Amino acid sequence: MSTAEFRRAGHELIDFIAEYLNEVEHQPVTTSIQPGDLFSALPRRAPERGEPWRNIIDDTRRHILPAITHWQSPNFHAYFPCNNSAPAILGELLSAGLGINGFLWQCSPAITELEMCVMDWLGRALNLPERFLFTENYASSQGGGVIHGTASEAVLTALVAARERAARDSDAPPVAYATSQSHSSVIKAAMVAGIGRHNVRLIEIDSRLAMRPDALAAQIAGDRAAGCKPIFVCATVGTTATGAVDPLRTIAEIAAEQNLWCHVDAAYAGAACICPEHRTLIDGVELADSFNFNPHKWLLTNFDCSAFWTSDRKALINALNITPEYLRNQHSESGRTIDYRDWQIPLGRRFRALKLWYVLRHYGLEGLRAHIREHVRLAELFESLVRSDDRFELPTPRCLSLVCFRLKGTDDKNRALVERLNATRQIFLTPTTVPLAPNGTPRFIIRMAIGATRTQEHHVRAAWDLIRQSADQP
Amino acid sequence: MSTAEFRRAGHELIDFIAEYLNEVEHQPVTTSIQPGDLFSALPRRAPERGEPWRNIIDDTRRHILPAITHWQSPNFHAYFPCNNSAPAILGELLSAGLGINGFLWQCSPAITELEMCVMDWLGRALNLPERFLFTENYASSQGGGVIHGTASEAVLTALVAARERAARDSDAPPVAYATSQSHSSVIKAAMVAGIGRHNVRLIEIDSRLAMRPDALAAQIAGDRAAGCKPIFVCATVGTTATGAVDPLRTIAEIAAEQNLWCHVDAAYAGAACICPEHRTLIDGVELADSFNFNPHKWLLTNFDCSAFWTSDRKALINALNITPEYLRNQHSESGRTIDYRDWQIPLGRRFRALKLWYVLRHYGLEGLRAHIREHVRLAELFESLVRSDDRFELPTPRCLSLVCFRLKGTDDKNRALVERLNATRQIFLTPTTVPLAPNGTPRFIIRMAIGATRTQEHHVRAAWDLIRQSADQP
Repeated sequence: MSTAEFRRAGHELIDFIAEYLNEVEHQPVTTSIQPGDLFSALPRRAPERGEPWRNIIDDTRRHILPAITHWQSPNFHAYFPCNNSAPAILGELLSAGLGINGFLWQCSPAITELEMCVMDWLGRALNLPERFLFTENYASSQGGGVIHGTASEAVLTALVAARERAARDSDAPPVAYATSQSHSSVIKAAMVAGIGRHNVRLIEIDSRLAMRPDALAAQIAGDRAAGCKPIFVCATVGTTATGAVDPLRTIAEIAAEQNLWCHVDAAYAGAACICPEHRTLIDGVELADSFNFNPHKWLLTNFDCSAFWTSDRKALINALNITPEYLRNQHSESGRTIDYRDWQIPLGRRFRALKLWYVLRHYGLEGLRAHIREHVRLAELFESLVRSDDRFELPTPRCLSLVCFRLKGTDDKNRALVERLNATRQIFLTPTTVPLAPNGTPRFIIRMAIGATRTQEHHVRAAWDLIRQSADQP
Repeated sequence: MSTAEFRRAGHELIDFIAEYLNEVEHQPVTTSIQPGDLFSALPRRAPERGEPWRNIIDDTRRHILPAITHWQSPNFHAYFPCNNSAPAILGELLSAGLGINGFLWQCSPAITELEMCVMDWLGRALNLPERFLFTENYASSQGGGVIHGTASEAVLTALVAARERAARDSDAPPVAYATSQSHSSVIKAAMVAGIGRHNVRLIEIDSRLAMRPDALAAQIAGDRAAGCKPIFVCATVGTTATGAVDPLRTIAEIAAEQNLWCHVDAAYAGAACICPEHRTLIDGVELADSFNFNPHKWLLTNFDCSAFWTSDRKALINALNITPEYLRNQHSESGRTIDYRDWQIPLGRRFRALKLWYVLRHYGLEGLRAHIREHVRLAELFESLVRSDDRFELPTPRCLSLVCFRLKGTDDKNRALVERLNATRQIFLTPTTVPLAPNGTPRFIIRMAIGATRTQEHHVRAAWDLIRQSADQP
């Protein structure tokens, strides 16, 4: 492709994206295609000869767009949001254009040092303790942050660091602690790390679906008595199902006393902690060993961008460092550089700091706080609308912009309601089941996860109108 | 940012990238900044208020560009190439613009089904056996492909699948096999998976630095006798250091006979297998359990794009699947959909298939073969230039576009030469040390890794002129 063609195609694609993001709210949120439809519609072999760019873009409109679930639609209230934004898209574009790789400092120093910089920025915005930051004197500090792709990678690296830090203690089988409400990635991490899902103890939860610290302490004592080696606990701030918040401070205190690695998974809720009024959610984080949240969820930074800090980077690096000859260089050996390859599972890494830098500078912290606060306000509004209709109930406390609700009555009635709602394709909701009392039978609840970049009050009111009207249909 | 501002900023950034890629060959390949320079030059806190886009772009030019190692420079011959291209940049841009996430089929069916499609396209282009493909009847086929971020993730998932497949056999400690020349990610995978680096046996290599199958067979027998459980062997096609090629067919036969998972790491060299004349490199792949190569290295598809196929997707999914309630849906449970979350370490995933689709269609297989063949021709040219100068020697056989060479004489003399060359910043080379005879002392060699998207004959001749002229300097 000539430079002129690239410019033309690039300008056109920028306009395409601008139009898409402006118009996406008028599209059905979900697609009507069935499994296999797209796969079958496409050829079985790559073309031998190159094709005109026009055909490729036409096929993108014809085949790809109709097969998309529109996460950027303001009517998308499923899972958690996955914010994109203009500055983040531009950051991702420039990262692709530069085409550089940053596994070692010397691979492209800007990747490493801008990442160190923005991770300190973001850590300070969250009021994380200094021990999680690089700080001015990064060569002698003990902590620091790294951008992973996902929270799953973050918890896996934390678990592996915990296992290695505890390896000197004994050869007893390592066990980890979470709850039935923790993210599935904790169990997956234990599976990948060879610890095994059977060695993840799911600690009892209280009526708010949060971990019971007394049960954690008892389980640790029991495991020690049984000859196991407790190494790791995951405290979740804002669970995926309902936004439940584990009592972080108490858990972290137990972990410190018992010599466990305490990882804080605030994948969704962490973003809100840039607002002082929400910072209490992570009170006690100063006692933890690692902390993670996803700017790609609710902080206007395109997926993938998962921010991870540890106060013990040496433990992380010890667990992940191998240095073959072809990766050695004078800078690394001087100790004056950070080599992020030793902080993560993959070797290679994109220039993800660029989009985060663009977002932090374009919006400023005030702009980002306004984004969070508006969605919390909309969730409060939605909560009050649900409360005002006595056919509905609010089975769990609202967490920030996540509201869980249900029709009073049977699970089947609720299941049918969600199916009717999603069938309209005007909104998209993902329900779940959770116990509504400790040890209770899981019940079906509906999640309203507000937070898409473009969601405004009228979208939330329209969603409620649709829900309200659908509630009495057979 | 308003739509109009986004369009303006986007067009400008497209032009910026077009200019950058046109002009990058005139820049020094590497940067002169020292560790900490960029970090210190940036503020210590994020701004409270948003800043004008102009300032952000100006700072990108002022602070970031001077701190970059230019992987897209045609004079970059270090590591392996990391190709970007116009269609791949545009694919990455659209992926960022759509802002969708594809961990389940229903999350955005296009992500999953386009990926299935292009992985079959690419598999057919490599002439992989049908058992590695989804094929038309994907609901009943046993294999299939997935795009990982890196080859490190590919080998980790393969190792974890191998461990779980072998778990029913016994509780004996699992061991894995590779060589001293295998990529560092094999040992890292064993560390992450809890198998431990001490349980990776490095099998003896022959005079071409390739694995000795007789030594592999003997080690397996010895490990079984010692009560260990052999589970996994990694055969490398094109090692990082010198491009050595393990005897894949014989290794895969031993693995099949001994019930080990055979993973083929062709991260760099696999791209060349779209050319019939190079396809012999992976002869025997039909006996393997998984195969991986990186289109992001030498196939014009922006990092990250690592293509992984397995003939036993059930084993992979068994090792990585956990299904909590909030991820259940009717489509997944029908068995008619592929849910890629169960094929990888992370949960979330970008729409990476888009850039690969754009590349395959824009260039066509003929165009991609021409790209590979031109770089192989340039490497042959470079090899002949080295051979024509009797101060130099070629310590290992050329592999495709990777040529290893050295000055006859001491390691110090060679080390000094590389330091002089890199200090010019006109080219960038990464040396390594390898044993030049089985069990020999590692010797210092220089790698000339040709393959950047824009590298042409005059760049290779200029590199040689610089090397030649520098060779006699003190």
